[in-house]
Amino acid sequence: MNNRPPEFIEPGERIDNLERGGLRIIQNPSFFCFSLDAVLLAHFAPVQNYDRVMDLCTGSGIIPLLLSTRAKGLKQVGLELCAETAERAGRSMRLNRLEESIEVVNGDVRQVRQLFPTQRFNLVTVNPPYLPLGQGETSGKDARSMARHEVTLTLAEVVRAAAYLLPTGGRLAMVHRACRLADILITLRENRLEPKLLRFVHTKVQAPSSLVLLEAVRDAKPLLKVGVPIYIHKADGTYTCELQELYAGGELR
Amino acid sequence: MNNRPPEFIEPGERIDNLERGGLRIIQNPSFFCFSLDAVLLAHFAPVQNYDRVMDLCTGSGIIPLLLSTRAKGLKQVGLELCAETAERAGRSMRLNRLEESIEVVNGDVRQVRQLFPTQRFNLVTVNPPYLPLGQGETSGKDARSMARHEVTLTLAEVVRAAAYLLPTGGRLAMVHRACRLADILITLRENRLEPKLLRFVHTKVQAPSSLVLLEAVRDAKPLLKVGVPIYIHKADGTYTCELQELYAGGELR
Repeated sequence: MNNRPPEFIEPGERIDNLERGGLRIIQNPSFFCFSLDAVLLAHFAPVQNYDRVMDLCTGSGIIPLLLSTRAKGLKQVGLELCAETAERAGRSMRLNRLEESIEVVNGDVRQVRQLFPTQRFNLVTVNPPYLPLGQGETSGKDARSMARHEVTLTLAEVVRAAAYLLPTGGRLAMVHRACRLADILITLRENRLEPKLLRFVHTKVQAPSSLVLLEAVRDAKPLLKVGVPIYIHKADGTYTCELQELYAGGELR
Repeated sequence: MNNRPPEFIEPGERIDNLERGGLRIIQNPSFFCFSLDAVLLAHFAPVQNYDRVMDLCTGSGIIPLLLSTRAKGLKQVGLELCAETAERAGRSMRLNRLEESIEVVNGDVRQVRQLFPTQRFNLVTVNPPYLPLGQGETSGKDARSMARHEVTLTLAEVVRAAAYLLPTGGRLAMVHRACRLADILITLRENRLEPKLLRFVHTKVQAPSSLVLLEAVRDAKPLLKVGVPIYIHKADGTYTCELQELYAGGELR
């Protein structure tokens, strides 16, 4: 929280240090702060040097920020529906002097055909709204609810957008609720995005999986790897070694 | 191997003690012996007292034998394509005096419509051939190869048969290769068998999942639980506590 440049911040906002190469992020806690889910995805995504990366539903821009530490020469776009959130994410990029390599676009994932050429990206990342409408507590059309529920964007719309943006061999990395796995795999294959790697996330050793990290490849042959489970907490509530390594710059591959 | 009744056994066969309520099983090692996969499935299947159970591809009959120790009043059928294997499984049932509650039928899963009335069973179990033709080492149409590859039976045919045999609310319990998960979930939903529970099996802690145990329910609503992973071996190669408990009569639920 030190070195806070007053010109970058607006009322209600704060700047958090990502403890990674000096990166900082601007957030407004009354809107929505990035979650562990996004951090997991950013360390799972199969990013390679010089990739063109699209982060759908980018929110605060946490995923492109973290990806920028994992590979060099990236050209990234973060697409965000909410104008205010997109503006804030753009300020985070300028705060980190990353505005040349990470562009934040205010727009609707359902309109990608109007916004971007097809097959433009090598990697699409997305931490989409998780729950079908009618499941869980829907609190209406506020930012928090929109990020959690499929109010403005369904799973099928996310996957169709990714399929449009990726050429043959292009990769999609997504985090989603494990309970939606059947919907996810079916929707991916319907859109010629073949699931190639799953890693299930468990909050602790004896808990069912809450989240799944998945990689799909455009037009690939079917053969799925279900990797080693990821555990978040030890029995005593502290982070597992794997999570500690992740926060120290490790990868979830 | 004691108490071997000579009248039950034929050349090349042996009788193994299942260490469970005195149960014994006749096998011919030059054909095919039951695997750990079948044992896992038998302890995972959601069997309830007085269920009507169908075990497709029953082989030696190991699954109905083990299920008979987990619930009372079961009426079970084991369906087996190979006449010689079916005859041997029938002898195992008589050896255990279970021929009244476990019927072994020699027939083709693809012909269930001719063999059984629809919706006759509450629970279908199946440890089917795993690999699509052309994957792995196919050694032709011998019994071992037929049990491993989709020579005589595809995943879609297995699932269609199960859907025919089960009424609304009826349960399918299957063990399969984790690498086929996308095919499996897609095929299940196409046949109105909704996946409800998955448990991934890992041979050891740092290994990817080799197998998946799954439960699907006919005409159920979508909501999948991904349970706690199952580990077979500890780092020193011995069975994990969970596997030891399983061999002592535990359940994998």
